[in-house]
Amino acid sequence: MQATDIIIKKRDKKELTREEINFFIHGFTVGDIPDYKASAWAMAIMLNGMTDREVTDLTLAMVNSGETLDMSQLVGISVDKHSTGGVGDKTSLVVLPIVAACGLPVAKMSGRGLGFSGGTLDKLESIPGFRTDLTPAEVKRQLREIGLVLTGQSKSLAPADGKLYALRDVTGTVPSIPLIASSIMSKKIAAGSQAIVLDVKIGLGAFMKDLPSARKLGNLMTRIGELAGRKVVVFLSDMNQPLGNAIGNSLEVQEAIASLQGKGPADLMEHCKVLSAQMLFMGEIFDDVDEANKMIDIAIKDGSALNKFSELIQAQGGDASYIDNPEKFPKAQYVEDVPAFENGYLATINARLFGEASVLLGAGRKAKGDPIDHSVGIVVHKKVGDNIHRGDCLYTIYANDKSNLMESKKYLEFAVEVEKEKVDPLPLFYE
Amino acid sequence: MQATDIIIKKRDKKELTREEINFFIHGFTVGDIPDYKASAWAMAIMLNGMTDREVTDLTLAMVNSGETLDMSQLVGISVDKHSTGGVGDKTSLVVLPIVAACGLPVAKMSGRGLGFSGGTLDKLESIPGFRTDLTPAEVKRQLREIGLVLTGQSKSLAPADGKLYALRDVTGTVPSIPLIASSIMSKKIAAGSQAIVLDVKIGLGAFMKDLPSARKLGNLMTRIGELAGRKVVVFLSDMNQPLGNAIGNSLEVQEAIASLQGKGPADLMEHCKVLSAQMLFMGEIFDDVDEANKMIDIAIKDGSALNKFSELIQAQGGDASYIDNPEKFPKAQYVEDVPAFENGYLATINARLFGEASVLLGAGRKAKGDPIDHSVGIVVHKKVGDNIHRGDCLYTIYANDKSNLMESKKYLEFAVEVEKEKVDPLPLFYE
Repeated sequence: MQATDIIIKKRDKKELTREEINFFIHGFTVGDIPDYKASAWAMAIMLNGMTDREVTDLTLAMVNSGETLDMSQLVGISVDKHSTGGVGDKTSLVVLPIVAACGLPVAKMSGRGLGFSGGTLDKLESIPGFRTDLTPAEVKRQLREIGLVLTGQSKSLAPADGKLYALRDVTGTVPSIPLIASSIMSKKIAAGSQAIVLDVKIGLGAFMKDLPSARKLGNLMTRIGELAGRKVVVFLSDMNQPLGNAIGNSLEVQEAIASLQGKGPADLMEHCKVLSAQMLFMGEIFDDVDEANKMIDIAIKDGSALNKFSELIQAQGGDASYIDNPEKFPKAQYVEDVPAFENGYLATINARLFGEASVLLGAGRKAKGDPIDHSVGIVVHKKVGDNIHRGDCLYTIYANDKSNLMESKKYLEFAVEVEKEKVDPLPLFYE
Repeated sequence: MQATDIIIKKRDKKELTREEINFFIHGFTVGDIPDYKASAWAMAIMLNGMTDREVTDLTLAMVNSGETLDMSQLVGISVDKHSTGGVGDKTSLVVLPIVAACGLPVAKMSGRGLGFSGGTLDKLESIPGFRTDLTPAEVKRQLREIGLVLTGQSKSLAPADGKLYALRDVTGTVPSIPLIASSIMSKKIAAGSQAIVLDVKIGLGAFMKDLPSARKLGNLMTRIGELAGRKVVVFLSDMNQPLGNAIGNSLEVQEAIASLQGKGPADLMEHCKVLSAQMLFMGEIFDDVDEANKMIDIAIKDGSALNKFSELIQAQGGDASYIDNPEKFPKAQYVEDVPAFENGYLATINARLFGEASVLLGAGRKAKGDPIDHSVGIVVHKKVGDNIHRGDCLYTIYANDKSNLMESKKYLEFAVEVEKEKVDPLPLFYE
């Protein structure tokens, strides 16, 4: 078998066999197949697609490229969640403590932010001391002890995916639905997940811009799950406007804390409850979603959800006093409210532009390895459909650099649209 | 400007600007843009195509990646010929001595064989001592002294093409018409050609399998020539059956010698005369093709064409006594005639299978750098349309290894078809 022949086969729109896919991924992982062949192959996949069977085989080949975790000794059913990423999406920080507090142990491996999209690890690192580099042994011990882990992707799990993703990132082969689906699913399966709740984001601030492509990605991941013997439930949710109010690392952690106390923004609260209930149902903690919902409300009211978050922070070396006293988080030097200049209804609050403006402020990174300023960001105060009065504060910018502040203000001038006519609110979920 | 953005633009089927193409080729040549980006880019070009303007800019960017030769001090109009490659195609060995003998100085840079397709340099190297690594200064001196040079591609001319071709060869991006056209034309333009005769081969033993794709390639090269200020004439010629009779290095040189004496196979003689006349016409040595044809016949009859070939061999360090005494070429150990088993008309003598069988015998290389046995090969004795009688010798195999001989014999069983009904001969040229 020759790598070049496998590239040619995909270039000519033919279906690759399982053996060919295994050969390519194995060769690429061990370094026998050089990057320049893998990138040409990825471009051929990007432009010519893959069948569901090929994508499943690609996923499993990447799973088998490294270690796999077996959680079956620790958890009845290992349930995971994954969001395709967006702006203000701090869902994991809220959902995981809730489900753990309701009796479902969960260990989630998260990623970092890149470009306009934030990352859970960056957000958690705004708490001093918090470690995101747990070893597989530490993951298992902590899961046994407190039933909750939130750490970085272990390099020993699905290493082929890590290597291929790094290559795709610099060769224009990121937005391929087969490659995105196999990347997500390989990490989840390698981490031992038996059931997966997928939150596919759609809209201006998401990688999937429209419902058909998001549905395609969702269906493909469900199909991979089916073929690989995993239960998958997909939610298609809106990412035209930021989720919740806060964008930026410690600002989002503070909003997550408020949400775990039942005081978060309505859209974020609702979103987190729906995902939590689904996870609890799939983990067979409750027989139906209604029962799960009741328990979720209790966990928020009686403080056990917030308490679980506190335990997580402590277990991973973080200073949990920040959870009880969020005012301890360092404040940005400049805090500026931006008012509405006209009366009407909020028609657009462009998630992507808000995400990019927060990167300008220092909350995200333009290139891998860039440093992050955890205290800066933006808090929006209005949602699409809201009635706006001239002078109302639309959003507040938190900055540590005057010129960054000016630049992001200018950038955001094009991010908000107010119309005279009544505007319908955006849905939280599409499907 | 970012290489990744240029890949993405082509991936998304957009037209690249001249600046983007120059940036990419320059960066790739100097090593700033790594192979893994260039191979993804080549695959995107392969699958999404390029406009004529883009291909011309790509060609000129590759020309400008290295030195260029200026022949204007040495030749009135520098005319070159190029064949897209085939089986038994020893045209250059015949055409160049003819045109040089008729008064048009020519310096041609040729390539090596790879796969089923032979290469002029390998053929010439069957003459002991013959050098194919002339420096640009040696090329110019020899062109001045004897008016004829046949050497390898200088690494200092269009180095981007050399680097890109090596990468395409192992990443499944060879058969792209824009990439083939720019590769050929960049080498010709860098070598100082002002007029180019292109022989695009079509059929079983060629890279272009059908008339439409060959025509597309021919038109594209003509268009590049126009946009780059070069005259280009394209011939579309048959490569379903081998050209002439001999396949294999010293066998082909011997056939070329016979042709220069006027005793070559009719199809090869006719093919070479047509190309020679066109070159002489484009080089403005003769006002019309008829006049050129008369002079060609004289050069063959009076021995000046063969004499020019002899001068070439001597000038490049070869033993010219082989030209006068072709019986000096080492003979293969095993010579086996293969007869026809039925009466009828020859319908197929598959050039590709004959080319591959000669590789099996050792006349060609499967991978770059493989050694070559100059004495082995096949001589065919019949052409499509010929009336065949049971027992007629169809072809003769020249081998130095018994098992290679058996293997190639077996291979060739599927390469010849004889039909009961009369079969028309194949045309020499399509257009």
